[in-house]
Amino acid sequence: MAKTIKVGIMGWGNIGKGVKEAIEITSDMQLVSVFTRRDPAQVGAGESQTTFLSADQVEEYVNDIDVMILCGGSATDLPEQGPYYARLFNTVDSYDNHDKIPEYFDSVNKAAMENGKTAAISIGWDPGLFSLNRMIAEAVLPEGNDYTFWGKGVSQGHSDAVRRVPGVKYGVQYTIPKEDAVESVRNGENPSLSAKERHVRECYVVAEEGAGKNKIEEEIKNMPNYFADYETSVYFITEEELAKEHGGIPHGGFVIRSGKTGSTNPKNQIVEFALKLDSNPEFTSSVLVTYARAVHRLNQEGKAGAFTIFDIAPVYLSTRTPENMREELL
Amino acid sequence: MAKTIKVGIMGWGNIGKGVKEAIEITSDMQLVSVFTRRDPAQVGAGESQTTFLSADQVEEYVNDIDVMILCGGSATDLPEQGPYYARLFNTVDSYDNHDKIPEYFDSVNKAAMENGKTAAISIGWDPGLFSLNRMIAEAVLPEGNDYTFWGKGVSQGHSDAVRRVPGVKYGVQYTIPKEDAVESVRNGENPSLSAKERHVRECYVVAEEGAGKNKIEEEIKNMPNYFADYETSVYFITEEELAKEHGGIPHGGFVIRSGKTGSTNPKNQIVEFALKLDSNPEFTSSVLVTYARAVHRLNQEGKAGAFTIFDIAPVYLSTRTPENMREELL
Repeated sequence: MAKTIKVGIMGWGNIGKGVKEAIEITSDMQLVSVFTRRDPAQVGAGESQTTFLSADQVEEYVNDIDVMILCGGSATDLPEQGPYYARLFNTVDSYDNHDKIPEYFDSVNKAAMENGKTAAISIGWDPGLFSLNRMIAEAVLPEGNDYTFWGKGVSQGHSDAVRRVPGVKYGVQYTIPKEDAVESVRNGENPSLSAKERHVRECYVVAEEGAGKNKIEEEIKNMPNYFADYETSVYFITEEELAKEHGGIPHGGFVIRSGKTGSTNPKNQIVEFALKLDSNPEFTSSVLVTYARAVHRLNQEGKAGAFTIFDIAPVYLSTRTPENMREELL
Repeated sequence: MAKTIKVGIMGWGNIGKGVKEAIEITSDMQLVSVFTRRDPAQVGAGESQTTFLSADQVEEYVNDIDVMILCGGSATDLPEQGPYYARLFNTVDSYDNHDKIPEYFDSVNKAAMENGKTAAISIGWDPGLFSLNRMIAEAVLPEGNDYTFWGKGVSQGHSDAVRRVPGVKYGVQYTIPKEDAVESVRNGENPSLSAKERHVRECYVVAEEGAGKNKIEEEIKNMPNYFADYETSVYFITEEELAKEHGGIPHGGFVIRSGKTGSTNPKNQIVEFALKLDSNPEFTSSVLVTYARAVHRLNQEGKAGAFTIFDIAPVYLSTRTPENMREELL
């Protein structure tokens, strides 16, 4: 297959890097350039195979790029970049501020519609593949309960909170689903469980020399909002252990629908979607690249506007032809 | 929500009965009638709330039914019924003869296209939701391996084979995924495993009075094609135990994609979709009803022809509005 879909990357963080890797193993996409708001020469110093350009130059590339993948953050970057770049390019992003998705959708939709562009928003795994599975499972089993468990995975916000505790030199926090809660859900027991009843928190801490470990542990465990309501464990480790064992960015989780069918003699029906990711950003990036393919195709069919993962027929995601899919995957 | 989508059921077996139950818990669908090739008065004798009509009368109902759900078998019913009814109605079926799907698709597609009807074929869980997950996971992780495990579940063909053994009064066969194989796949070890290395078979047998149990066990375990290549266990039970413990039709399984991302430092990424079903036919029926909603909507938009689970955007499946989905499920 020819590498005919030309892709741009906006932003060179973990997601942008993962997008570059994901494009390399597709059979139909090529990376045109990475765009950065920083100095392109400096940002791209170690990457001789890749073109780095200033974000200021991006308008010169409107005819050279089929899809721009927006790799900025949801807090401040995407609320501006999403609608801005949807005027110029077909786009994909991983906007994940759940509460503000409707507002974000509307602003990107307007920009894309006015300019005949196609934009897929909130793509990734949550929001993204988890949302898709929540939606389909609920449609199939209208009587039932949904459970989302996150982890085992690194939580950036909670790791930051640990690192703010006096005496902590480095720290990593893992969110971990409670095994008995997961089992209870999988067994169709339909427990009523809050987030803190579904998860435990584990902190791996490198203490400053001479710091009081008991005090650090107490302070972490009693931190309101972050840890006080949770079953929290604190483990003190060396800097070497941290580098060796806790340098990755794993994540994952489960979306489980526990439903019932049959009015006279109800049956339990359990639908589960699970991810176990050694690299959270690289997986998110792989999903973004998959939906970039869909966005390109939708735009070629004249379908403009903003789309979510709910709106896109799966057939647009694969490099296989519909005939081949029916023959080999159905 | 008004019960505005009018549905017909063609065929009153386990799937047809499950479809009736599934329609009852939707908020937007009503059952118009069950159609049967047998005597409707006899078939519907215990079902005073439901209309039963002869399949011969079905053409009189073309204006009263939005979607006809075809609940016949794949061996002989659907190859004829699929294209026949797609001339008259929008249809959904669970055609599951994997090898002949392309041919079946073409014949249904032609009939539906020529008559402005919409038909969803091969809907259920395998083919169906399993296929969908195989396809999406492969698109997201192009480098990787797919594993499908079936069970724990009753296999009809293998149960029949057990019952043909002389001295067997009743018998039920379960296909069960091998736990160590599942664990190896979930751990990203990418084992190379044939179907018989992924599954074991358990048989629960009620012997005729005076029959030699050792001989029955030997005969089952050495049966070519069905059991000889598999790790097979045979348990003798009483008729009461069979009725009490083995009267259900459970099934399920896992579709696992074990992929890699990142060229320089490859990471394991595991995507899993799992079903644990207390009633295989009731779950299949629930999926059929969900896609009946989609078929109705697609037809209202003028989209005629045959569709598979790959071709239908998830948004068509839910009773929620797109706005509500974005707000509550994304």
